[in-house]
Amino acid sequence: MRHIQEMLEELRAKLLTMSGLVESAIKDSAHALSGDPDVNIQDIFQRERQVNKLELEIDEIATGILALEQPVAGDLRFVTAAAKINNNLERIGDLAVGIARRAESLAHVSKDELTGEIPTLAELVADMVNRALRAFVNKDTQEARAVLSSDDAVDHLHESIFSELIDHMKRDSQAVQTCVDLMLAARNLERIADHATNIAEAVVFISEGVDVRHRSLGIEI
Amino acid sequence: MRHIQEMLEELRAKLLTMSGLVESAIKDSAHALSGDPDVNIQDIFQRERQVNKLELEIDEIATGILALEQPVAGDLRFVTAAAKINNNLERIGDLAVGIARRAESLAHVSKDELTGEIPTLAELVADMVNRALRAFVNKDTQEARAVLSSDDAVDHLHESIFSELIDHMKRDSQAVQTCVDLMLAARNLERIADHATNIAEAVVFISEGVDVRHRSLGIEI
Repeated sequence: MRHIQEMLEELRAKLLTMSGLVESAIKDSAHALSGDPDVNIQDIFQRERQVNKLELEIDEIATGILALEQPVAGDLRFVTAAAKINNNLERIGDLAVGIARRAESLAHVSKDELTGEIPTLAELVADMVNRALRAFVNKDTQEARAVLSSDDAVDHLHESIFSELIDHMKRDSQAVQTCVDLMLAARNLERIADHATNIAEAVVFISEGVDVRHRSLGIEI
Repeated sequence: MRHIQEMLEELRAKLLTMSGLVESAIKDSAHALSGDPDVNIQDIFQRERQVNKLELEIDEIATGILALEQPVAGDLRFVTAAAKINNNLERIGDLAVGIARRAESLAHVSKDELTGEIPTLAELVADMVNRALRAFVNKDTQEARAVLSSDDAVDHLHESIFSELIDHMKRDSQAVQTCVDLMLAARNLERIADHATNIAEAVVFISEGVDVRHRSLGIEI
């Protein structure tokens, strides 16, 4: 039987692969949305299938470790957090595909001006995912906490994109469908940032054993 | 130390409490959206705080069982599935609050006609959550599989609500903001249905040890 450290290493490596796939999917789908002709949307769909496959593999490894190795303390926290990170990365993959689908339906529509700050939002969000995973690999809770505090910037940018699109729809009924597609894409980016936040919370939990969820809601835990 | 069966029972009971809270939050938030004056939106927010507290408690119990009881086979599957169900119920609670927030911002806006089939969608979706949890409690995989097949009906209804709202925005620029709020509420309902689907998948996994995720994507697992 393999040593537990080897299985934990495999878990870490597969999560990193998965994270690389979703980061590039986020960036590519946002570029596709802006009309970049160099992006191959089919590649984004292909990457999501790889992500889904990895999710199942990672779940199996995590369950295997729990069943056979009976990890305790730090290792147990690592495995349960890895399972959460896995789940969040899979959701991020889905959301990136959602953006790619919007890009497909907008492929032949003029939208230069309308895309506005969506690419900036996408960069911010992909960066959050990258930093959250780096924090996980390096057990860097400072970096993880920095990710948590980026979420506000994302929310503000998302809100300003929304109100611009709403204003545009009020002025130009021809652009309603396009604006709705762009709003849904921006919303997916905001949700990806939420998942990056969940990942960062799991990293803090692994390293410090402190559960930082729901703190902002004033719940006593 | 308590017996593992007792801890598993506690896990089950808390998940049921949580599910009752989110179901009523879904229905109440949809009624609030339709302008029902009998709904107290603050109650919905209060219930979400309870849900968040339960999420942390359930996570702690699940981690405790893994650390101290080293469950195997069926019990291990039950605990890992319970952790997933927990996570999905928490997300459902958040989404219901999102709908309640839309209802708040639409409180003084006339929207009778526009709400359309959103209450029907809310009933369908709350019913999916209820059935998924009943399937979990009764270990009823047939019921769980029935939940999985309800998701298509939700998707169709959601799409038809979307296209009606888009048509309305094209005709009436005054109604843009209201229609956007209603679209976001409908979208949250669709996402709740996705989480109910995740719960049903976890139920199939507990009972049969079969992972039914990503089957529709043609991934070999």
